[in-house]
Amino acid sequence: MKLRYFPLAMVTSYLLSMSALAEQTPSFTKEDLRVAAELRDEAFKSSKDYEIVESLTTEVGPRMAGTPGDAAAVKWGVAKLEELGFDKVWTEPVTFPTWKRGVETAEVLSPYPQPLVITALGFSVGTAEEGLSAEIIQFDDLKALSEAPANAAEGKIVFIKNRMERARDGSGYGPAVAARGQGASEAAKKGAVGILIRSIGTDTDRMAHTGVMRYEEGIEKIPAAALSAPDADLLENMIRRGKPVTVKMTIGAKNGEEYTSHNVIGEITGSEKPEEYVIIGAHLDSWDLGTGALDDGAGIGITTAAAELILRLPKRPKRSIRVIMFANEEQGLVGGKAYAEAHQDDIKNIITAAESDFGAGKIWRIDSKVKEEALPAVKQMAKLMEPLGITYGNNQAGGGPDLIPLRGKGISVFSLRQDGMDYFDYHHTPNDTLDKIDPESLNQNTAAYVIFAYLSAQMDGDFGTGFNQK
Amino acid sequence: MKLRYFPLAMVTSYLLSMSALAEQTPSFTKEDLRVAAELRDEAFKSSKDYEIVESLTTEVGPRMAGTPGDAAAVKWGVAKLEELGFDKVWTEPVTFPTWKRGVETAEVLSPYPQPLVITALGFSVGTAEEGLSAEIIQFDDLKALSEAPANAAEGKIVFIKNRMERARDGSGYGPAVAARGQGASEAAKKGAVGILIRSIGTDTDRMAHTGVMRYEEGIEKIPAAALSAPDADLLENMIRRGKPVTVKMTIGAKNGEEYTSHNVIGEITGSEKPEEYVIIGAHLDSWDLGTGALDDGAGIGITTAAAELILRLPKRPKRSIRVIMFANEEQGLVGGKAYAEAHQDDIKNIITAAESDFGAGKIWRIDSKVKEEALPAVKQMAKLMEPLGITYGNNQAGGGPDLIPLRGKGISVFSLRQDGMDYFDYHHTPNDTLDKIDPESLNQNTAAYVIFAYLSAQMDGDFGTGFNQK
Repeated sequence: MKLRYFPLAMVTSYLLSMSALAEQTPSFTKEDLRVAAELRDEAFKSSKDYEIVESLTTEVGPRMAGTPGDAAAVKWGVAKLEELGFDKVWTEPVTFPTWKRGVETAEVLSPYPQPLVITALGFSVGTAEEGLSAEIIQFDDLKALSEAPANAAEGKIVFIKNRMERARDGSGYGPAVAARGQGASEAAKKGAVGILIRSIGTDTDRMAHTGVMRYEEGIEKIPAAALSAPDADLLENMIRRGKPVTVKMTIGAKNGEEYTSHNVIGEITGSEKPEEYVIIGAHLDSWDLGTGALDDGAGIGITTAAAELILRLPKRPKRSIRVIMFANEEQGLVGGKAYAEAHQDDIKNIITAAESDFGAGKIWRIDSKVKEEALPAVKQMAKLMEPLGITYGNNQAGGGPDLIPLRGKGISVFSLRQDGMDYFDYHHTPNDTLDKIDPESLNQNTAAYVIFAYLSAQMDGDFGTGFNQK
Repeated sequence: MKLRYFPLAMVTSYLLSMSALAEQTPSFTKEDLRVAAELRDEAFKSSKDYEIVESLTTEVGPRMAGTPGDAAAVKWGVAKLEELGFDKVWTEPVTFPTWKRGVETAEVLSPYPQPLVITALGFSVGTAEEGLSAEIIQFDDLKALSEAPANAAEGKIVFIKNRMERARDGSGYGPAVAARGQGASEAAKKGAVGILIRSIGTDTDRMAHTGVMRYEEGIEKIPAAALSAPDADLLENMIRRGKPVTVKMTIGAKNGEEYTSHNVIGEITGSEKPEEYVIIGAHLDSWDLGTGALDDGAGIGITTAAAELILRLPKRPKRSIRVIMFANEEQGLVGGKAYAEAHQDDIKNIITAAESDFGAGKIWRIDSKVKEEALPAVKQMAKLMEPLGITYGNNQAGGGPDLIPLRGKGISVFSLRQDGMDYFDYHHTPNDTLDKIDPESLNQNTAAYVIFAYLSAQMDGDFGTGFNQK
């Protein structure tokens, strides 16, 4: 830095802010930090987190929004929170349209007849009962499809072959998943009668990945399904040979009735400022193919077990802590939206929030989205997580899908980022089952969440509310 | 060794035999060894092996014995061998009873309703159309079931929970697979109305492993299916809770008509002793769930590509080499038996044989089953494989499943043992697809097979015939 070209006012302001940070009174007492460290270490002695996921996946299993599994999960959630001794347990209604999966089969008719493994995308319409047979037209990705001439896919089934990239932070998902969300309407615009996409996943298992899609208004609704990765490879190999490839797909999916499920909430009531509260949560619903162990049974186990450790303390923390099991995240963050709407007059009471919804891998980074003055407190919190292999990242946290609506209303949020290297191997497939969870990693997650929840509830000062509003 | 207690005659005999081995004339000329080494290195420059598996899995796919896929595979095999320029290509009939898979679903009815992933075992009878509902009774393994009192499983569905152990040489398969082969009849003897076994596999994928089973004569035939590993875990977790667990299984499988398929044979005709021949082979059929890439498309690719390298030589080897694509190995070594029967007057012409039927992992050991005098030749052959990471094992080779009947008639055999650490992750599941094959490992296999086939065809002397007879 060349000082002579640097405005003096800026330097002064910079030095003042540095000094303010350095001199800031610690936000947590020594006793708070001692208790938080003890809670962290206790997390490794407990198997409560794993027991909770085992219980949910065994006694409920799949719990797609609007199904009997959803109702069973709500009942299970209430019973579990009561059994664990939460001070208050209640539910709040969440209403949404439903979708039902039916038969889903596909096969190559010519030139090389053989079956394909597919799964319908959430909210896809069905085909005629006798199925839909048409020639395949292949596109590299959604962009290539969008840029194709009108009628490019006239009377054909579009196949989008783009592959998702593997990454610890799951950053390959965003670019790839657009094909799932918007592919059907883009294909219909080009005259297609159906769409098959390569599954949005990173595995090579012969299982297709489901997930929600949306039809653009005013565009014809065509049936949409995902192919397993090996089947997408197979189709590519057939197409490469240059002969027309015709496929038959049969999808029995259809929309159902409107349904009311519930957000399930358990509260540890604060001893000094009970009306102010910290949210930790996860979503209770899952897709129907697996048992929702990673997505998001793990999150339910981690956050509930973290709260359970705090429940065991001789004294309630100063503020309240709410464990929220959100309804229907999978089909549009419906539970998160319902909570934000129901509590919009209540936003200033939410001291901060974090959702666990990225499987069961170890947390490697903590990000915050707080007012600048609160950053020293965040750093103190992060320091307690260092022995867990967690470092502080930045102040641009997202907080988790069900917190997006609350974040939009101005609450501060944290992201406790999990290692997601293999998350998209299992995500939204039948392979999302209990055996994919490592109990020790789960403990590490619980240890991080208990530090976050306890210290936020004890904090002198706050993380800011409203600054985050857009 | 204490010589004074050692009979002199034995010592002399021992020293003589040592000296005989040491002085033995090499079985292969320097030129033979040079050509074999060159063929070995050429194997890594060719992608023919991979192209063959890609072709089989893409253009034919599943080829369960007796299905249209079987017929397509025979047609494919003949065309492929002709295209590659074999001197003679022909088929030999193989007749067998067939079995058809139908619907296969299962679900827990109570106390925790949720679906289960199952697959019918080959030759299982079906259930009534409306399915079979009964309480589950769990056994640790086949032995525990066999030792249970009569009527122990009266009116129940037996669940055998034993797990297969992972091992490089696949040695966990034998002990585990008995539950698949004999479980149904053992369960029926105890009064059971159906049987579910934990899949005979080493993976944690939510895919069940099929495979053949047999009913004991005079015992009631009850429906038999395998649960995927996560579903077996789930059932165990439910049963552990102590309440009766009832399951409904629906199996639509049934026996079909008798069918005639074909062993497909391609010959490189020897230049000096055309009537004597070396067999390299694999089985052409597969199970229906996957595309049979590992089981046994890989073997087809390896052995056919090895022969193709020899076909490219300026001169035919002294003896003939036959690539045999055996029919219907999966349902009882039927093609191997048919070949042995059809060629029983011909056995003395078979100089030796090896079958590739253990996936696509690298070969790490070569075993022989030859007369003792031929061991120096085997060692010379093994020496050429050393740069491939292959060492000589012992003289107790099995030779591969389709060679069992020929071995019983006295032919010498070799086992080129592949690394099978992950073979049983995919074996007999929908996951047996092309992406599981590493082209470089395939090349290493082809390199070993080409050394074996070429040197055996060139060999001065033989490996013995008849000594191996039981």
